[in-house]
Amino acid sequence: MKLGDLPTPALCADRAALEANLRSMAEGLPGRRMRPHVKAHKCTALARRQADLGHVAFTCATIREMEGLAAAGLGEDLLLANEVLDAHRLGALDARVTVAVDSEETIAAAARGGVREVLIDVNVGLPRCGCPPAAAGGLADRARAAGLEVRGVMGYEGHAMPIEDVARRAEVTEQAMALLTAAHAEVGGDVVSAGGTCTWAVNTWATEIQAGSYALMDHSYAYADLPFRPSLFVLGRVISVSDAFAVADAGLKALAMDHGSSDVEGGSVWFYSDEHVTFAPAAPLRPGDLIRVLPKHVDPTVAKHPRLHLLEGDEVVDVWEIDLRDW
Amino acid sequence: MKLGDLPTPALCADRAALEANLRSMAEGLPGRRMRPHVKAHKCTALARRQADLGHVAFTCATIREMEGLAAAGLGEDLLLANEVLDAHRLGALDARVTVAVDSEETIAAAARGGVREVLIDVNVGLPRCGCPPAAAGGLADRARAAGLEVRGVMGYEGHAMPIEDVARRAEVTEQAMALLTAAHAEVGGDVVSAGGTCTWAVNTWATEIQAGSYALMDHSYAYADLPFRPSLFVLGRVISVSDAFAVADAGLKALAMDHGSSDVEGGSVWFYSDEHVTFAPAAPLRPGDLIRVLPKHVDPTVAKHPRLHLLEGDEVVDVWEIDLRDW
Repeated sequence: MKLGDLPTPALCADRAALEANLRSMAEGLPGRRMRPHVKAHKCTALARRQADLGHVAFTCATIREMEGLAAAGLGEDLLLANEVLDAHRLGALDARVTVAVDSEETIAAAARGGVREVLIDVNVGLPRCGCPPAAAGGLADRARAAGLEVRGVMGYEGHAMPIEDVARRAEVTEQAMALLTAAHAEVGGDVVSAGGTCTWAVNTWATEIQAGSYALMDHSYAYADLPFRPSLFVLGRVISVSDAFAVADAGLKALAMDHGSSDVEGGSVWFYSDEHVTFAPAAPLRPGDLIRVLPKHVDPTVAKHPRLHLLEGDEVVDVWEIDLRDW
Repeated sequence: MKLGDLPTPALCADRAALEANLRSMAEGLPGRRMRPHVKAHKCTALARRQADLGHVAFTCATIREMEGLAAAGLGEDLLLANEVLDAHRLGALDARVTVAVDSEETIAAAARGGVREVLIDVNVGLPRCGCPPAAAGGLADRARAAGLEVRGVMGYEGHAMPIEDVARRAEVTEQAMALLTAAHAEVGGDVVSAGGTCTWAVNTWATEIQAGSYALMDHSYAYADLPFRPSLFVLGRVISVSDAFAVADAGLKALAMDHGSSDVEGGSVWFYSDEHVTFAPAAPLRPGDLIRVLPKHVDPTVAKHPRLHLLEGDEVVDVWEIDLRDW
């Protein structure tokens, strides 16, 4: 099938660019040094490709992602890098399941739900989940007292990701990992899980890196000097043309805008509506012409689509279900 | 089932508020005077409720929405208020199908796809789809020459919706409808389709109003002095707490942010991540506590969810599939 045969809007990835990204990471952080985060693509077929390249342990953000990977036979070592208050669906999985805990309540929930292994989630500077570093040891004791195996710690230096200066980004990462390493000394276990696409190369303290975006690659990470290039776009079709602008059928329901407005290749965007983009084209367009829209933030863009179309040039060579959507 | 038994994040609507909105509109614009836009809820069960109240003709933004309503037996009079270049899926529907056209190409596509009826889409001031008003008559002739039945015109005064001053909003609506009425005189037919939730009461020129948001009702329309109140919220659960902030499991993948950041009831939002909201709670919270997040823009928020939970107080009294998602 050709690109032009697809109903639009359609989520597409350039297979060569995606494959190059996957291989770069597999060379840089082989095997267990990398625990791919599936929240970035929510796609079992893409996860299977990551496993083929040696990354057999995965990171998830939702219970649904854990369930889907387990059902697909990719459950060798699944980490839910997030807190949950009802862990019964996790406890029921036919997979090795580890869940992040950062409070008495989440420890109790893990034990009650039948989960056997946990990481102590430590706040290393991003105001989100994680206990204070000084509380990590005490929580590990409580977890063990509740019958849980404590595999180690995790802590996400998300506040380092947007830092443009590479040296400064490395410095902030080092400070965050000093907190995590200190917590680890109190907690024990052999896992120190951290990192993301923008710190994968500078975070040398973590035993495993939780990067996800590198595969499809955010346009908003253009500043970050990384060996990955954007492979994702949303295909739209021009449906209306006037003297001053053109309108295509790729709008807010097909593109996430939280990291900034998506760019249209060969056009200057005026605004987005639910199902439309109005833009000034660089060269005249006619109804039926195809356009490519470049999402700034891949994770929530992918989550809006049912399928990912893999391309070689203009040929659709494969179609992967975004089967880990929803919750 | 109780609210607290739902996995989170969960899309919820207060049934009494939703029902009051639906009844207000059915009284204000009974029967065919109102052609509900299903893009706002993408939910066949909600559309059925609108049909029960007398609105048996529907407006859609996507082919998928048209297919879903037709399959559900709600195809008495379906309008795709949008241009398409491949109309074969529309032509195959077991329903009365009308599609908007605004160019030679979209007329040819309708005829080729087996669609029999069209509206001439006229640009009445919003830079999006629609032909120039002066071109409407010529396009109607072309459509008839192509064997299509021209039912009339449509034109969306979307540029009037954000105007806070009611008198000014009415004035801009009048100017837009003057263009549409003039085009209608050239086109013929008995349909003048226009309007939206913020102009439903002041647009007295349209024979039918295409409002959608009124049912679940946008918080971003709070300025508009309308007899509808927000009935939609996203239920989240507190998963982590620190001294200064709390974190709940309702993030960017569960909430559309294009009309501004969603508010948390009883809290002040710091920021959203893919699956999290970090906020300062007005009163102390514990992990497991429930929160309500109020989306500014319902349409793309609903499109992120698989199901809508109907509530009476804290009781989940019904669950409706968001079955018209995707394309």
